[in-house]
Amino acid sequence: MNSSKKVSIREVGPRDGLQNESTWIDTEQKIEWINHLSRTGLPYIEVSSFVHPKWIPALADAEEVLARIDRVDGVTYAALVPNEKGLERALRAGVDEVAIFMSATETHNRKNINKSIADTLPVLKNVTRIAKQEGKSVRGYLSTVFGCPYEGTTEQTKLLQTVEALMTMGIDELSLGDTIGVATPNLVEAVVREVTKLVPTEKMALHLHDTKGMAIANIACGLRTGVRKFDSSVGGLGGCPYAPGAAGNVATEDLLYLLHGLGYETDVSLNEIMKAAAYIQEKLDKPLPSHNLQSFLAKEGSV
Amino acid sequence: MNSSKKVSIREVGPRDGLQNESTWIDTEQKIEWINHLSRTGLPYIEVSSFVHPKWIPALADAEEVLARIDRVDGVTYAALVPNEKGLERALRAGVDEVAIFMSATETHNRKNINKSIADTLPVLKNVTRIAKQEGKSVRGYLSTVFGCPYEGTTEQTKLLQTVEALMTMGIDELSLGDTIGVATPNLVEAVVREVTKLVPTEKMALHLHDTKGMAIANIACGLRTGVRKFDSSVGGLGGCPYAPGAAGNVATEDLLYLLHGLGYETDVSLNEIMKAAAYIQEKLDKPLPSHNLQSFLAKEGSV
Repeated sequence: MNSSKKVSIREVGPRDGLQNESTWIDTEQKIEWINHLSRTGLPYIEVSSFVHPKWIPALADAEEVLARIDRVDGVTYAALVPNEKGLERALRAGVDEVAIFMSATETHNRKNINKSIADTLPVLKNVTRIAKQEGKSVRGYLSTVFGCPYEGTTEQTKLLQTVEALMTMGIDELSLGDTIGVATPNLVEAVVREVTKLVPTEKMALHLHDTKGMAIANIACGLRTGVRKFDSSVGGLGGCPYAPGAAGNVATEDLLYLLHGLGYETDVSLNEIMKAAAYIQEKLDKPLPSHNLQSFLAKEGSV
Repeated sequence: MNSSKKVSIREVGPRDGLQNESTWIDTEQKIEWINHLSRTGLPYIEVSSFVHPKWIPALADAEEVLARIDRVDGVTYAALVPNEKGLERALRAGVDEVAIFMSATETHNRKNINKSIADTLPVLKNVTRIAKQEGKSVRGYLSTVFGCPYEGTTEQTKLLQTVEALMTMGIDELSLGDTIGVATPNLVEAVVREVTKLVPTEKMALHLHDTKGMAIANIACGLRTGVRKFDSSVGGLGGCPYAPGAAGNVATEDLLYLLHGLGYETDVSLNEIMKAAAYIQEKLDKPLPSHNLQSFLAKEGSV
């Protein structure tokens, strides 16, 4: 059992958040915002994606963003990479870490990557090999770990096979995604316990969407099960673009409130994160799902 | 330790929800809505308040609502009562259960009730005595149990003295309120364990506001600590009227999703609750904080 009180947050707002927002943020504002995030104490920022701009036009400026942000010592600047071509772009842009991705369920993998799981694994293996040769660390995202919008329940044997395949490639961290936010704490505990047999908790992260309001309870459960790395996005960015009130990633502010309340250390300033959340809320011109941001703004009028 | 899988929900939307909304719902719509709630499987609905209409004008129609709703067998229809005068009105209107209220912190009690805690207790004792004589059960709300907007931390010795005083009056159920939604699970666990020394869990409920997004995690903790009664409001009604995105009571839908996911039984239909939430959202003409409602509407377009 992991008794450490140190928790590490992976901020994914600039990538997983903005790629799902219907309003696009212009490059200057992204840079200003990421520079602010770099000074909040966050150890890790996923800055953009090198998926082809045809698929994620909101992040077509990945090269420019990475070239122009002020990098702060101690912060890892990562980006999403789908294949060797994306990796070449990411390496030229000077990412610190490469994030590869696939799904735990066959149908979601095909819909998202246009390949079977069997055909995806060699691509990711090759990306991992080259990235490691270039001295970059590699993070693996596994989506639909706790449920799938197409298949419903995620098949556990297949999930564990895929986890093993990713770990065998030599990835440095595995992020287990509740892509559609359907898990409740009992499922999180069961899955984390199984995955822990293949992945040490130091290499495991939870990536939980707050679609059904379960993310914070699931994180509290993850902490009890020994997980100490969590993905989140400032403001709770990344909700469904067609649903005004629907939640996205768990908000970094809400995660911090939980962690600090439970006595965990993060080195991240909740107050500075609130300011960064208020900034991006203003640019997106809509209330974001973050509970702490909204209650803070209600009380203070402004941050 | 309570190993029962049966959980009882106290729906407080028509009272604690609507009293805090800036838009008032007219009497016909309230009745239609409460009639719908009565057919969802909910065992308990707090229908209105007999606090003087000067203080809660949105619920000035308490008598008419209680007179005209269709009462369903097995559903307890309760109302908030501040004093003997309010009790007379509530008894005439035929409530099944009387809910009295006070705060665990002196300053909040004075601001909310305009009396010291010492001066409040005899009033509530008298209300409880008469209500019991009239054959009504009595529920006690204790606010600011986990934190106070004026005093910050809630003083534990004083809290436990007040709990004891309320139980000695002979109330049938004590609802522990996180009025400003500041608790994290460690605090909930610590307080519930202390209060359990004075109140059996069968007589204890948690009333958690989702202001900082902690309510569901705190309920999961309450369940582990043996609590099996929870207050909630359909749609997550009851946010601050001045803050568009700020959360109110934990949403009944989100509570149900957690409970059913964890294998608890409630006899409440999540689908019917969703319809009741969509109804009141439409009448209030703004997105409510409920995660499950928003994700359902995003997916289905309508309920």
